Parts: sequence; structure tokens; C-alpha cells
Amino acid sequence: MLTLDKIYHASYVLKDVIRPTHLVKAPAIKDDCEIYLKPENLQITGSFKVRGSGYKISQLTDEEKKHGVIACSAGNHAQGVALAATKYGIKSIICLPDGAPISKVEATKGYGAEVCMVPGVYDDAYNEAIRLRDEKNYTFIHPFDDENVIAGQGTIGIEIMNDMPDVDAVVCAVGGGGLISGVAYAIKSLNPNIKVYGVQADGAPSMYESLKHGSPVHLDSVSTIADGIQVKEPGELTYELTEKYVDDIVTVSDDEIASAILELIETQKMIAEGAGAAPLAAVMFDKLPIKGKKVVCVVSGGNIDVTILSRVIKRGLLMSGRQQTLCIELQDKPGQLVAVSNIIAERGANVISIHHERASEGMDVNGCYLRIVLETRNYKHVREISTALTDAGFKLV
Amino acid sequence: MLTLDKIYHASYVLKDVIRPTHLVKAPAIKDDCEIYLKPENLQITGSFKVRGSGYKISQLTDEEKKHGVIACSAGNHAQGVALAATKYGIKSIICLPDGAPISKVEATKGYGAEVCMVPGVYDDAYNEAIRLRDEKNYTFIHPFDDENVIAGQGTIGIEIMNDMPDVDAVVCAVGGGGLISGVAYAIKSLNPNIKVYGVQADGAPSMYESLKHGSPVHLDSVSTIADGIQVKEPGELTYELTEKYVDDIVTVSDDEIASAILELIETQKMIAEGAGAAPLAAVMFDKLPIKGKKVVCVVSGGNIDVTILSRVIKRGLLMSGRQQTLCIELQDKPGQLVAVSNIIAERGANVISIHHERASEGMDVNGCYLRIVLETRNYKHVREISTALTDAGFKLV
Repeated sequence: MLTLDKIYHASYVLKDVIRPTHLVKAPAIKDDCEIYLKPENLQITGSFKVRGSGYKISQLTDEEKKHGVIACSAGNHAQGVALAATKYGIKSIICLPDGAPISKVEATKGYGAEVCMVPGVYDDAYNEAIRLRDEKNYTFIHPFDDENVIAGQGTIGIEIMNDMPDVDAVVCAVGGGGLISGVAYAIKSLNPNIKVYGVQADGAPSMYESLKHGSPVHLDSVSTIADGIQVKEPGELTYELTEKYVDDIVTVSDDEIASAILELIETQKMIAEGAGAAPLAAVMFDKLPIKGKKVVCVVSGGNIDVTILSRVIKRGLLMSGRQQTLCIELQDKPGQLVAVSNIIAERGANVISIHHERASEGMDVNGCYLRIVLETRNYKHVREISTALTDAGFKLV
Repeated sequence: MLTLDKIYHASYVLKDVIRPTHLVKAPAIKDDCEIYLKPENLQITGSFKVRGSGYKISQLTDEEKKHGVIACSAGNHAQGVALAATKYGIKSIICLPDGAPISKVEATKGYGAEVCMVPGVYDDAYNEAIRLRDEKNYTFIHPFDDENVIAGQGTIGIEIMNDMPDVDAVVCAVGGGGLISGVAYAIKSLNPNIKVYGVQADGAPSMYESLKHGSPVHLDSVSTIADGIQVKEPGELTYELTEKYVDDIVTVSDDEIASAILELIETQKMIAEGAGAAPLAAVMFDKLPIKGKKVVCVVSGGNIDVTILSRVIKRGLLMSGRQQTLCIELQDKPGQLVAVSNIIAERGANVISIHHERASEGMDVNGCYLRIVLETRNYKHVREISTALTDAGFKLV
């Protein structure tokens, strides 16, 4: 049974495994509430997951430790299990679907795990892990639906309460539900007046739907940039704990998550993965009743693929009106480029790139195209420039 | 005169202005020395600069405070002065050259400064600031060559010594020299056995050249992605202190800096600007005699333009062999794309984009081009794939 004692015990045991993560005040993000971040992206392995797997592994019997552990994950859980096992001198095997990002595979190996690439998708890797467990007597480390794993994640709740006993609300991302179960249990046990909110991605709302339905539901397909919480079905134990201790679950879109990632980069100089930025996205886009409150957003992890990061940055710039592509139809005669350039320069936008091309389908045979990418201040600035171009007789396409 | 007392006094005064920044152990980066980061990128305003300007402004006379302060900067100094002035209820004016990045202008306004855009380059903005100072009786806040500014930056040295008295070496970026002067003075005063090293960019080695020359030299042109240390000439006071207290100055290339930025993103989940990553670059690329030592790299700031960040990420991926563009000449007949795809898939590289185009100049009229961008593991992996393609009869162009 999950108890507060067990979570305190996990805090004690984990002192040797984890890094301390201090609350960061983030006044620049929003001015109608007081936002603090719990930066588990700065945790060892880049995510909170090492807490759960660390405590779980520390509590195995000597017999179990001798055989080693196995897990199935392409992400943070894999790295958490690998590091914790290595720390305790235990063998670890991680089964991964063979399409897993190379960077994650390398990171998992780097923490000392043996990696087993399984052809197919997550479910195939999972089945292989279970087969190996049975064949070789490994202990399977579940990513979330396990009491000791949940107790490990719950240590975040204890730390928040130690650092800021007068917090009003804590916001966590929800995938399988391990993090929020532990955090909500710890916080509500210490002070039931503190609100605990969960955030899921619009494209993977399994806990959200399960709570509406009254029992765990299985979603056939899930899709979000927040791969850490892209989970089809919550656990039984985590469903029960969430249902009992969590005040509400809300969802955010991928665009909202991308904006939150960019906000964390620009104002906090921190890298968060999609799941890590989801709580902040919920706060930024007013999904929660927290006006005037002291709120802690758990930034659960920072393991975002740099290729995706680079895409998120671009999208974020576009969404906030700070980068804009204008496509302008020109008459193919001298002086047109000068006129356009002047209008843009006068309004203080920076030109990032220009592409000038002639005669494509559907255009006047004398016409040509100017595709300009601009660095702008915001949407108002974009509109200002567009209007000035239109007023000067240019056609935006 | 700079004294240790003054730096301790600055530490005391700044408690109300700055955020605490805790040393972060970074074992993943290198295994032949023990690296710690002093994350001033997580400092309020995203840089250490607020320490110097904060202490300077706190020590103004009431008369000076009444008139207000002026500074010239497009970067971290501007934000530091703006925040500190606002904190002490003082008016601040920041002169900026009109080509300054929009994001920096907005950030400076956001901290409460009045921004004065000056046509031209930095020197023009500087001249205008001096003119306004004389006309309006503002106090000019120098970015580095000022005793109180240096004392403020020196508080970083005190904090490092408090947190880790057994440190062997401290590494700082050097632009005008304010940071390293303060840090070296504080550390050497407390324990002269601790080494203090400075790092400059290959493209802006003003302090490096000055030390070689034996007095401050002025470089005609400087250019580096580390805009925070792109300074043509050190200060007189900072030159003197650096000459006396700093053990050595080394330089790093822009590519090395870009790699260090990427390393901080991937292993530490932190955003550093070029100057902030320069010390780590010097450590990563073995520019310093620190094998087996306990080393603190000061990550001085994180205010990197996201557009530049996105470019740095791309460059970093290329440099480390984790992204590669292959250009393959194909015969324009069915089955060619399948053959290429198979070779790539068998070797476990991810395809990021494919561009397929026919007949361009200099090619056989039947020929066509395949331009593939791949996510790869490292250079060895890239060579493996190239060789396999060549062996199968494809021509790489």
C-alpha cells in the first residue's frame, strides 16, 4: 500500500541517486499569478523518472538484484532504469522498438544498460520484454503502475512542500499517471487544501477520458509532440490514485506546448521536452483557475530530440508573430525590390531570407514572386507591414 | 580601490536583486576532469551582468539617483542596468544602435528602461549616450571598466568559494574583462593556489592580444557568434587586474563554441549564449591544463537569439556527424529510390527529408538528383552509409 512513510523513505534512499532540484521563480511568464518551476529537466538523466525507477530498484530483494531488471521504453524511463541499475550494480536490459530515435538509444547505452532492439512498435518491444523476463527471471520495471515507482515520483511532492509550504497549486503532466499519483498523494496527505492539477496533450487524453468514463479507457491512437506523455491507457493503480487525489485534468494542444517550450527557452534559459512544458502551457493559456495563486509547474523532463527542438523553435517564432513569410507578387520591372525593401526597412523588420523567382503557373507571364522571411516584433507588426505593402499596390499571395 | 571587503559588501547588497545560482555537476561532458557549472544563464535577466550594474547603481549618491542612469549596450548589460535601476526606483536610459536585434530591444524595455535607438553602429550609440549624459546629468554605467561593476561580478567568485572551497580551477569568458577581473580578484584573495583561466573567441581576442603586447590593444574588427564577448578593447582597470590575477587566457573557435552550446542543451538541458558556452568549449577541446582537476565553468549568460540558436543547433548536428546531407546521382528509372532507401534503412539512419529532382545543368539528360538529409549516429556511421552507396554503384556528388 502507498503510504506517506514510503514516500519519505524514498526521499531518504534517493539522496544518493538524484540531484537536488531547486524551485525557480519565473515572474517573466505571466503577471496574474506567481509561477514557480520545479526543474526536473535538470535532474540527472534529464527527467524525474529516475526517482521512481531508483526507489523501485533499491527495494528489490538480493535474489532479484542478482538476476537483473528489464524495462521497455524509448524514453526517460529507459534512462532512469539504466542509471539506477548501474548505480546499484545491477544488470539492466532495455527493450526498444527499432524505430526509436538514435539519440535516445545512445543515451540509454551510455547509462550502462544493455539495449535490445525489437522490430516493430512499442507493443512488440513490450511483448519481447515480458518474454525475456519470463525466460531469464529478470524483474520487469513498470514505467508507472507500481507502488514503489509511484512512491519515488512522490518525492517531488515532498520537496515542493519543504521548499514552499504555502503553495496554492501544483501542476503536473500526465501520461500513465505515475508522477501525478505520487505527487498528489504526498501533497494531499500533507495538506488537502493544496490543489493538484494534471495536464495531458489534446492528442493523448487517456487519463482525461478515463476520468470522464469512470474507469481506465484504452485509446486506439495517440499523437502529440509530447512523446513522454503519449500513453494509450493509464495504469489501474494510477487511475485510482488520480481519481481520488487530483482536482482536475485539462488538455493542451501541441501548438500551446510548443509556445511553452519556447517561453522556457527565452525567459528561463531551460530546455524542456513537450511533456515537461505541458503544465506551463496549461498555465499560460488559462486552462486552470489559478488567478492570484502561487503555482508550481513541474517541468518533468528536458529530453527533447534536437531535431524536434529546432522545429519547435521555428513554429514558436511563427506562432508568436516573430517570424513571418510574405509572398509578394511583383511586376517584373526594375525598382520593385527596392520599393518592397524600403517599406519593410522603414517599419523596422529584419529580413532573414529572400527568394525571388519568375513565372510560375497561374501568374502573369511578366510577373514574378518575392518570398521574404522576416523577423518581426509581433502580429501587430506583421499586419502593419502587410497593410503598408498592400497600400503601396503590391499583391500579397 | 577594489578590495575583498567591497566584494563581500556587494554580495550582501545583491541578495535583494539577484537569484541564487547553485553549482551543477556535469559528469556527462568529459571524464578526465570533474566539471561543475556556475549557471548564471539562470540568473535574473539571463546573465551575470545584473550583479555589476546592480551593485554600481546601489552605490550611487541620492543626487545621482535622482537624475537617473544611462548605458550603451544591445545586450546583457542593457538588461542588467534596466532591471537594477527599476529595482531601486531609478530612471534608466539605454542607447542602442538601430540594428540591434528586436528581441533584445523588447527585453530591455520589458525591464523598465527607456530605449533610445541611435542610427549607426555601437560607437554611434556610445557617443549619443555620452552626449545625453553631459546634457542631462545622467550617470553613465560602464559595462566593465568600473570598480563597483567589477566588485559586483566578483560576487560570483565568493559564491564559488562558499559552495566548493576545494575547487582547483575556475574558467570565465572574457570580453571587456569585468567578470574575470572580479572573479580572479575574489578567488586569488581567498586562495592564491586556485587557478583562474579566461577564454576569448578566436574572432575577438582583445585581452589575449593585450596581454601578449603588454598593454591594452585595440582590435579594428571583431567577429564571433559569442556577441557577449565581442569587444574590441579591454578596459584599463580590467586589463590591470587580469594581468595581475589571471593565470592564462586561451581562445576558442566559433565551431567549438557551437559544440559547447549543443552539449549544454543535450546533457544539461540549459540554454547558454556563445559567451556563456566559451569556457566549456575551452574545457571540451583541451585548451587548458586541467586533467584530473575540479573545474568550475562560469556559464555567464543565456541570452541567445532563438534564430541564432536554431542555426547553432543545425551546425552542431552537422559537426558531430549526427546530421548529414547526401547528394546522390541516380539513373532516372524505376527502383532507384527503393535501392537507396534500403541501403540507408539497413544501416539504421533516419531520413529527415528527401528532395528528388531531374536534369539540372551538368548532368546527363536522363539523370536525376536525390538530396537526402539523414539523422546519423556519428561520422563513422556517415562513412558506412556513403561507402555502402558507392559500393552499390551510386555516385555521390
